[in-house]
Amino acid sequence: MDDIIINFLEKPELENPIFIEGLPGVGNVGKLAAEHLIDEIDAILFAEIYSIYLPPQVLVDEDGVARLVNNQIYYRKNVGSEGKDVIILTGDYQGMTPQGQYQMTDRYLKMSKEMGVSMIFSLGGYGQGQMVDRPRVLGAVTGAELIQEAEERGVVFDQDHPASGIVGASGLLLGLGKSVYDMDGICLMGETSGYFVDPAAAREVLEVLALYIGLEDLDYEALDEKADEVEALASRVLELEMGSMGKDVKKEDLNYIG
Amino acid sequence: MDDIIINFLEKPELENPIFIEGLPGVGNVGKLAAEHLIDEIDAILFAEIYSIYLPPQVLVDEDGVARLVNNQIYYRKNVGSEGKDVIILTGDYQGMTPQGQYQMTDRYLKMSKEMGVSMIFSLGGYGQGQMVDRPRVLGAVTGAELIQEAEERGVVFDQDHPASGIVGASGLLLGLGKSVYDMDGICLMGETSGYFVDPAAAREVLEVLALYIGLEDLDYEALDEKADEVEALASRVLELEMGSMGKDVKKEDLNYIG
Amino acid sequence: MDDIIINFLEKPELENPIFIEGLPGVGNVGKLAAEHLIDEIDAILFAEIYSIYLPPQVLVDEDGVARLVNNQIYYRKNVGSEGKDVIILTGDYQGMTPQGQYQMTDRYLKMSKEMGVSMIFSLGGYGQGQMVDRPRVLGAVTGAELIQEAEERGVVFDQDHPASGIVGASGLLLGLGKSVYDMDGICLMGETSGYFVDPAAAREVLEVLALYIGLEDLDYEALDEKADEVEALASRVLELEMGSMGKDVKKEDLNYIG
Amino acid sequence: MDDIIINFLEKPELENPIFIEGLPGVGNVGKLAAEHLIDEIDAILFAEIYSIYLPPQVLVDEDGVARLVNNQIYYRKNVGSEGKDVIILTGDYQGMTPQGQYQMTDRYLKMSKEMGVSMIFSLGGYGQGQMVDRPRVLGAVTGAELIQEAEERGVVFDQDHPASGIVGASGLLLGLGKSVYDMDGICLMGETSGYFVDPAAAREVLEVLALYIGLEDLDYEALDEKADEVEALASRVLELEMGSMGKDVKKEDLNYIG
Repeated sequence: MDDIIINFLEKPELENPIFIEGLPGVGNVGKLAAEHLIDEIDAILFAEIYSIYLPPQVLVDEDGVARLVNNQIYYRKNVGSEGKDVIILTGDYQGMTPQGQYQMTDRYLKMSKEMGVSMIFSLGGYGQGQMVDRPRVLGAVTGAELIQEAEERGVVFDQDHPASGIVGASGLLLGLGKSVYDMDGICLMGETSGYFVDPAAAREVLEVLALYIGLEDLDYEALDEKADEVEALASRVLELEMGSMGKDVKKEDLNYIG
Repeated sequence: MDDIIINFLEKPELENPIFIEGLPGVGNVGKLAAEHLIDEIDAILFAEIYSIYLPPQVLVDEDGVARLVNNQIYYRKNVGSEGKDVIILTGDYQGMTPQGQYQMTDRYLKMSKEMGVSMIFSLGGYGQGQMVDRPRVLGAVTGAELIQEAEERGVVFDQDHPASGIVGASGLLLGLGKSVYDMDGICLMGETSGYFVDPAAAREVLEVLALYIGLEDLDYEALDEKADEVEALASRVLELEMGSMGKDVKKEDLNYIG
Repeated sequence: MDDIIINFLEKPELENPIFIEGLPGVGNVGKLAAEHLIDEIDAILFAEIYSIYLPPQVLVDEDGVARLVNNQIYYRKNVGSEGKDVIILTGDYQGMTPQGQYQMTDRYLKMSKEMGVSMIFSLGGYGQGQMVDRPRVLGAVTGAELIQEAEERGVVFDQDHPASGIVGASGLLLGLGKSVYDMDGICLMGETSGYFVDPAAAREVLEVLALYIGLEDLDYEALDEKADEVEALASRVLELEMGSMGKDVKKEDLNYIG
Repeated sequence: MDDIIINFLEKPELENPIFIEGLPGVGNVGKLAAEHLIDEIDAILFAEIYSIYLPPQVLVDEDGVARLVNNQIYYRKNVGSEGKDVIILTGDYQGMTPQGQYQMTDRYLKMSKEMGVSMIFSLGGYGQGQMVDRPRVLGAVTGAELIQEAEERGVVFDQDHPASGIVGASGLLLGLGKSVYDMDGICLMGETSGYFVDPAAAREVLEVLALYIGLEDLDYEALDEKADEVEALASRVLELEMGSMGKDVKKEDLNYIG
């Protein structure tokens, strides 16, 4: 079989679309954000990607129906007050090897180029190794000329603690996109502990993205509910750990879950 | 050399055959079931597969004769009261890397498509991590329309504990089979501890499969004998462990072998 | 670069040569035997093999001259009282991955086929996990018809403890050789502890091989000297270990070095 | 995408240039030396190399600008009193797999051959596992005829402790360069502990190289400053470790940092 198989359900004609990536990663921030956006704007699945670089397995739903692990690409025309066309990539897994990461990313970029993409937003989490009360959205860009626009939308470029490296699809889309396909790109990284899936960080990332595409009225209720569930779960884990340590610790004192 | 070499001993002409897979895996359930079926219906070896994705080794029999590790494919025409043609895949190993799993599975599917296969049965074990008294046969299917037929034959779709993922050839045959080759499939998984080879679970799986192909009179004696041997061995292991723990434990109390 | 590069220094015309392999492995038995044979019969280097499947490194001699790790193939016409032509493969390393093992072995077999080889001798060690006083030479063959001839030359086929699998080049040459190139083969495995390089086991292997090719007058002095050195070293290691255990242990009592 | 992409910014015409490699490695000695040389002789970047064999990531600078990890090749005409043309290879990483090491090195050699290179200098560190007061520059060459010239420039060929193997790009450039491309080469290895980046060892290596290309007036100030910083840092680490051990140890007594 071909190393990567793209199964097109439809070949949409789009006008200078922006490309948004949210694959699984730190805190699942990018994937949560991408999936929420897909739901809220009723984006349409147009391509499924199977690959030898993904795990050799099927996922089984609660009815017992199996489907091959894959990546999915959605589109939606005329989104938000800016009326932009968007393409959104999400999926079950990222490529499992360095070669797989490069080849899958390159395939997405090639397809994007053909569809007229010139701007990439990659969404992800930035693991801080401790609980984060008010997650900032850290940024990395393919060129300094993109920084001011990002800062105006709340993106933080922390010169004291710059993100020294971005590993995986979010990084490669920017790097290969710029170096090989001459596309601009920004990576939006929501701060997160890295210990839990983090819908709260995903909301922050999405709020920044919404400013870029003029989605002022995006509804975050589903994400907020998920965030409450995770918060409740995390609190219970903390209480259990505190109990076993025989200490009386206020939640506010905690900034690390071991 | 080619990454996968299929050495055809014969090219049988079959009529809409079903494809049955039983490669090594959890509890060796699938392989035990497939080999027993091959023996009982006198299936005929028609293809040997060598591959760089298999371990680089030979197996030596007790006489000292070595043979290269491989997979084997058998066929039999006009099986059971339904008079079905069947193809059975078994072998020494599964592909050792994700890429190997994908490429070998794809090759088997391509061959199957050419031979007219439209239905796949993949056989395997479902590791429960504890001793299983009466193994159920859990199922996963490529489409909801296959569930009723399966339940009528005793397959369990446990919505409380669905098999979240099936890794390896049994899963890929279904996933790639459906997504790329448009074939239907069902995975039959015999519950097993996962600590021993499990001929008893293999029998349960085979009994379900027999209902599909009308093999009412299948003889399970050889499997039952193997099951007795394993049972005896497992009991001895348990007694030794109990002794070393200095406890008086009834066998019925045990549901975990550490 | 090509995955495997064979640099021919010469293309000898040989008559139905036998192929002898002695690459690094358990106790380095195969390599020691092959190198000793090369020295004693003044075999001529005719091919060097470089490959991406070998480690990415150079070896540096004591003068400071570096050379790329490789495999080497030698030949000699009209050897021994039988007047046989022989090809001998040795080298710095075996292929480092399963794919590398398969591809390099296949290349050697393809070359051998073109040169008229129909019989392969692969030489190696059989790790017993304990010190071996009088190493036997265990055998594995590609067909039962080769057993009697081997037993007449002292090869042991131990039905109680058959070599269940032979991993690496020695096994693959037999397995691929038989299945894909229709060549006969025998693997000669000298028993060895597996803890030290073992020139004594190499001598035993070579003595059997010598009977096959009529090399009655082969000189083993260099191998015996190496064996004495290793024996002395091993004894010192044993004494040190015994001393640290504060025990008075006779050397004869030892059959295991931890 | 191609496994290796060379993006030429310029195709300089050079006259029998020498090829100098300084990629990351032990103590980062080679990379520090190559980068210092590039700075001091104002070498010009003419090629960037991207590859699936490099890590799938971008590096982000303190402003937040991301760039894909890569290797870079510089050139400079008419360098030093000898008036030599030079090519200098450095980069973020070496190839991450054996195959990647081979393929990237081969590509650099192929390009070098086309540009007229006949002599390679690979620069690196030689890890001694203990602090080194006065780092020697150890050598390995592709042929004995290169030794005298090297010794005259201070390179040490330590017959008592020869570098038994050189792993990675520095070794492969020599090995593949000689065996496949018939180029001469020398590897200059500055002794270093292996525990810290080592600008002092880089200076020693560069001083030897400078004698080869007649760069008598090379300024080492930047390297010396870095060396002082590392020295200060290392001393502080040592003091901390000594303190925690509750011992009074003179710095001169130290030759090992655990």
